[in-house]
Amino acid sequence: MIATRASLQNWIEQIKPLHRPAMAEAEARQARLTKPAGALGRLEGLATQLAGITGEPRPRLTHKVVVVMAGDHGVTAEGVSAYPQSVTAQMVLNFIAGGAAINVLARQAGARVVVADLGVASLLPTRPDLYDGKVALGTANMAHGPAMSREQAIQAIESGAELVRREAAQGLDILGLGEMGIGNTTAAAAIAAVLIGADPVELVGRGTGLDDAGLMHKIEVVRRVLAVNQPDASDGLEVLAKVGGFEIGGLVGAILSTAAHRRPVMVDGFITTAAAMIAVTLAPAIRPYLLAAHHSAEPGHGAMLAWLGLEPLLSLDLRLGEGTGAVLGMQLADAACRLLDEMATFGEAGIDQG
Amino acid sequence: MIATRASLQNWIEQIKPLHRPAMAEAEARQARLTKPAGALGRLEGLATQLAGITGEPRPRLTHKVVVVMAGDHGVTAEGVSAYPQSVTAQMVLNFIAGGAAINVLARQAGARVVVADLGVASLLPTRPDLYDGKVALGTANMAHGPAMSREQAIQAIESGAELVRREAAQGLDILGLGEMGIGNTTAAAAIAAVLIGADPVELVGRGTGLDDAGLMHKIEVVRRVLAVNQPDASDGLEVLAKVGGFEIGGLVGAILSTAAHRRPVMVDGFITTAAAMIAVTLAPAIRPYLLAAHHSAEPGHGAMLAWLGLEPLLSLDLRLGEGTGAVLGMQLADAACRLLDEMATFGEAGIDQG
Repeated sequence: MIATRASLQNWIEQIKPLHRPAMAEAEARQARLTKPAGALGRLEGLATQLAGITGEPRPRLTHKVVVVMAGDHGVTAEGVSAYPQSVTAQMVLNFIAGGAAINVLARQAGARVVVADLGVASLLPTRPDLYDGKVALGTANMAHGPAMSREQAIQAIESGAELVRREAAQGLDILGLGEMGIGNTTAAAAIAAVLIGADPVELVGRGTGLDDAGLMHKIEVVRRVLAVNQPDASDGLEVLAKVGGFEIGGLVGAILSTAAHRRPVMVDGFITTAAAMIAVTLAPAIRPYLLAAHHSAEPGHGAMLAWLGLEPLLSLDLRLGEGTGAVLGMQLADAACRLLDEMATFGEAGIDQG
Repeated sequence: MIATRASLQNWIEQIKPLHRPAMAEAEARQARLTKPAGALGRLEGLATQLAGITGEPRPRLTHKVVVVMAGDHGVTAEGVSAYPQSVTAQMVLNFIAGGAAINVLARQAGARVVVADLGVASLLPTRPDLYDGKVALGTANMAHGPAMSREQAIQAIESGAELVRREAAQGLDILGLGEMGIGNTTAAAAIAAVLIGADPVELVGRGTGLDDAGLMHKIEVVRRVLAVNQPDASDGLEVLAKVGGFEIGGLVGAILSTAAHRRPVMVDGFITTAAAMIAVTLAPAIRPYLLAAHHSAEPGHGAMLAWLGLEPLLSLDLRLGEGTGAVLGMQLADAACRLLDEMATFGEAGIDQG
């Protein structure tokens, strides 16, 4: 039995199975569209899944939102990143100014970027375009003990869920997951190692660009983190609290809330996939609401996607995070829905069927 | 020595190597952008290649055009397709009406669709939105002799090149290749078998949806086509004339002309890849102007991409043609250019480098 606050348990109970009648209608329509059966490959299955998620036989993804949740990690004191911790806050300002990769790709895709501070280690300006979900000024160093308390983990989850509730009020047809946090590949690798039950060597990668010695050291740090904290893999909240991060908790809440709203979640890379693994541990029913945008260049990502049973849409050797892959994936999901909705049928076009 | 008309030889001579200074500038800028080195994976190399193609250190793909070249194939008399020949003309009307998959995807991508009749087996209406490049009312049955004359092959190539010249006058930053022609997977497989020097069994697929018996029969037809015609693999024009198609010839001309204009060509699936192979045989210098959008579900496609030395951007089990994969690929190329052009540098954003 997972101890959670009543509200968290409440969203989890709201998550419904896919809507089978909408899926059957979508499939029947696919068969009438002016193309050979199955010729649109994965885009056909994707459109059917989106029909099941939304309950709409011809879903449209008009309102695309990508969240970029930011948080800092006490474990950076162990020297696990090629960049200093100060970069997290600096990049948050870059997201707000529109100069980061995620801003460029979101402009192309017509997606709203929602930047959220879940636990950056410095005080950021109060602004309408920065969601204030700060739990604390960075996590504790998980090489010495839990990254955060169980109460803080719940607070991060609730803050992420609250962000989604606000966005849903403005229109939200698909949520892309993004993050920023120097040191967060270390937390994500620790989460994945616990939930998969694998040695860290299989999951730890170079992050923003460690050399061989840095990689070896990072593996040792993750081993120490696991030995010190001993998280129970069946308790998603404990895994988040002991070896996670505030932005990862915010993502967990955003995933749960988006699924409760019957909307799809486009997972990005290594860190957001770790958040998805915690979300599935807390609420297995959210699994069919998840779509995998891409296979990251971070070597452990494949095992995490396999654990979730997700097949990524793209494989472009991206390893930036921020939601960059998620936005590219959202464009493919949008394409799948447009094809299902807008294509003429054989009857409408007066075309002979094979 | 390939015998071609003077004008064809003339475009081939206009094709220049990639512009190295523009590529070096693009790479230097990538290193200053607010991301870890290499974190945008294949999108970085793609942007650099596009800089080399266009000669612009920060290229933009504002004017995206996808051509859908249509033609019929006499070899359909051998029973090689699951659909009747009448579907080619019916689909051309569907493209003009905006109801086909390519229209939907082009609307999403902001790309112009240019529909061209290179050799449909019926008289189509004269309309400003249908390019008239008709060479004849379908090719001859290549199971009994050449699909077309050498003069007709040149005419198809010149017609495709003329289309690109007209589009370039309206603005053309990237060309996506698309096609429609019942029976044209048979021609494409024959072209690939000749140029790769492989047995047809390795290259012939189910096309729009043949069953096992249909597939076996199609392989036998391609073997007969090759035995009857004996095309010389070193003579691209002869391969096109003997075992090609009018729309394939039009695509060859479009590729050559686009490269001569220093613009990139986004190859789509099985048929457009066969056209690209002929274009490379005629003019090896066009190779770096080619981008592969996707790996088609048609099983021979991988060997053709490997022959061209191209790594596809997407792998979504598409097998529709029309340029559908090309338009998705153009969006990724557009994303790559926008990232290079629009992202802030570390200096501009005031961010500490690792």
